[in-house]
Amino acid sequence: MSGESCLTGMKILDLTQFEAGPSCTEALAWMGADVVKIENPKSGDPGRTTLGQPGRDSNYFFQYNANKRSVAVDLKDPRGVELIKAMARQADVMIENFAPGAVERLGLGPDVIRAVNPSIIYCQVKGFGAGSPYEKSLAFDMIAQACGGLMSVTGDEAGLPCKAGATVGDTGTGMVMAISILGAYVRRLRTGQGEHLQVAMQDAVMHYIRNAFTVMERTGGKPAPRAGSRTVGGGNPPIGVYPCKGGGPNDYVYIFTSRANPEHWTRLLKVMGREDLIGDPRYATPEARTERREEVDAIVSAWTRQHDKHEAMRLVSHATVPAGAVLDTAELAADRTFQARGIRQTMKHPRAGEYVMSGWPVRFGGQTPPLGPAPLLGQHGEEVLAEWLKMEHDEIDALRAQSVVG
Amino acid sequence: MSGESCLTGMKILDLTQFEAGPSCTEALAWMGADVVKIENPKSGDPGRTTLGQPGRDSNYFFQYNANKRSVAVDLKDPRGVELIKAMARQADVMIENFAPGAVERLGLGPDVIRAVNPSIIYCQVKGFGAGSPYEKSLAFDMIAQACGGLMSVTGDEAGLPCKAGATVGDTGTGMVMAISILGAYVRRLRTGQGEHLQVAMQDAVMHYIRNAFTVMERTGGKPAPRAGSRTVGGGNPPIGVYPCKGGGPNDYVYIFTSRANPEHWTRLLKVMGREDLIGDPRYATPEARTERREEVDAIVSAWTRQHDKHEAMRLVSHATVPAGAVLDTAELAADRTFQARGIRQTMKHPRAGEYVMSGWPVRFGGQTPPLGPAPLLGQHGEEVLAEWLKMEHDEIDALRAQSVVG
Repeated sequence: MSGESCLTGMKILDLTQFEAGPSCTEALAWMGADVVKIENPKSGDPGRTTLGQPGRDSNYFFQYNANKRSVAVDLKDPRGVELIKAMARQADVMIENFAPGAVERLGLGPDVIRAVNPSIIYCQVKGFGAGSPYEKSLAFDMIAQACGGLMSVTGDEAGLPCKAGATVGDTGTGMVMAISILGAYVRRLRTGQGEHLQVAMQDAVMHYIRNAFTVMERTGGKPAPRAGSRTVGGGNPPIGVYPCKGGGPNDYVYIFTSRANPEHWTRLLKVMGREDLIGDPRYATPEARTERREEVDAIVSAWTRQHDKHEAMRLVSHATVPAGAVLDTAELAADRTFQARGIRQTMKHPRAGEYVMSGWPVRFGGQTPPLGPAPLLGQHGEEVLAEWLKMEHDEIDALRAQSVVG
Repeated sequence: MSGESCLTGMKILDLTQFEAGPSCTEALAWMGADVVKIENPKSGDPGRTTLGQPGRDSNYFFQYNANKRSVAVDLKDPRGVELIKAMARQADVMIENFAPGAVERLGLGPDVIRAVNPSIIYCQVKGFGAGSPYEKSLAFDMIAQACGGLMSVTGDEAGLPCKAGATVGDTGTGMVMAISILGAYVRRLRTGQGEHLQVAMQDAVMHYIRNAFTVMERTGGKPAPRAGSRTVGGGNPPIGVYPCKGGGPNDYVYIFTSRANPEHWTRLLKVMGREDLIGDPRYATPEARTERREEVDAIVSAWTRQHDKHEAMRLVSHATVPAGAVLDTAELAADRTFQARGIRQTMKHPRAGEYVMSGWPVRFGGQTPPLGPAPLLGQHGEEVLAEWLKMEHDEIDALRAQSVVG
């Protein structure tokens, strides 16, 4: 980024764990906010061992906690609670995603914190909203995907509900909260007003399946179906994945011919060397092709099978028909252009060494924000308490001796 | 929202269409920004007919364009281009998601606009990033899902790559751009600095499948697999959807027992009345249960089949084991608590009448932002040109007579 960081000076007191909360604060950290992660001194964020690597923090943890600082504080100790309140007085934002009711039981709920700092933006991420029948239930990404409708519209037509491979319930929630925090922060800069933000993962998932609701409305209220690789609205053929050379689980190319653009079908026929079918009434309209879906898919597959997915994508997309190879994680990781463009970056971690990971996908003046390593547990206790609370070395040492700070 | 809107005074010149761009600017409109949608006078945003309803704008369009204003401008006319430049001088943000190269050909590229307004935040959404081998290719949501790795990790283990039912390529991209715009806007308020923001849908999709990359790294670089209803990391049984009474396509309950919490399995056994299995070494550890996955799934299914999904969810989640009914769009739409909580709201549209739709999922002081209807094509030409450019009625009439403004 050219110039100073976007969010220089913004102080975030981050009591979140796992992914929905940490993905939110990480986005803000990447734009320059000072994100201080509060963790329990014994084991820290349980995300440190999720999908774990033995003997060190997991790559999962690295992925959601880059560019943050860590302070280990015992929240079961009243002095730890007081320390958090003192930090909340200095913070612009406080955020938590504990189980329902937990932060209030700790004595750090919205009423308490907003009383000590009326202009703070106090943020809560839960599985279900206050007023929902499931208000007190726990949620993880998959539960939010089940209850937010996403699984009902993901998977093969005749198959079981599937989980989307994207963590829409976690990172999807984190993103809408990050937007809301920044909106409230803009107003706070202007007016000094604090805010209480709440998001439920179930509700956030619904934000990402709005097309499915639209499809339901078009069909008189019938639940939107699963549609395999096609869109939730069904679309007209050719649409979906077509098999390519290689025969592996991801040797497919996606081809999309839009109803809005009748040229897509004609252009595709030319790419496939099937000019003989141009204007053929059996396939000339979206309706005709929908009636003969199997024939159309067979015509397209006969051509795609002769090419590998990269070549098929190149040929079809160069003819200005939307097409995409189904790329797997290993192929994406091997594509060095992501590193050249700063989308994936090498992080230098004090314990794990060098590690390539995905950073913020948006470029500012041609550059993505630089990644810093995720913190070790309690790594920044001394420097943060000195900076935020002007505490002296001796005071901090005393808190350490009493195990209030780890 | 209590107090004034978060983004009051923020002016956004919005040249986007379909979903990736409009979902971004809509989030900002919901927080109070003045979003002026520029559309071609003939037919407007092609999203107006996507998944269409005959004789009026589609619900798809309503869903992504609430709370915006519309000005119809002919960008093929040099006077139309000059009008956009004049508006860009007044705007804080300009955003476009045309096909690669199109905005530059119109004479409204970043160099031109940033020359007339150096402090503007100029934003571009494309399918692929500059420097990517696919830089010039078109993308829609499904192409981004294919090329961003999401389809490779969605679907049944032995099945084809599936499209996630969430528009991660579109709305997912819109959300990361909205965060970046607000970050840049905060800096602009502080320093006056403009910015050039660029996001590619392929890169944005990768942001939502970071767990899949972590799984790949743990397994020595093997592509992360599809895992049906389980998590991309596989997890240990019970995990996934289990069949419930009713037998319909979504009569399933998701049950998740975490490796990190051995109590989940014991609690579940109690709920199922299978105390006899507590401590049974065949199932006592995650490893043992993984070895006997089919047996474990059979034990759980035998119980879930006796209950409907709502009851199963209630019983399991009340025992503090994460569980969620697989809800479909019709069931979610029928649940009135979403309206009571403001997550779904009734919009009053001048042509379509009353229409219930999902709004912003985050609550500010207990309330979601109120929804306003999506604009008719060119509905706000006169008022916007008067407000933004101080144009007189006669001047605007002249532009109308020349078909520069619709």
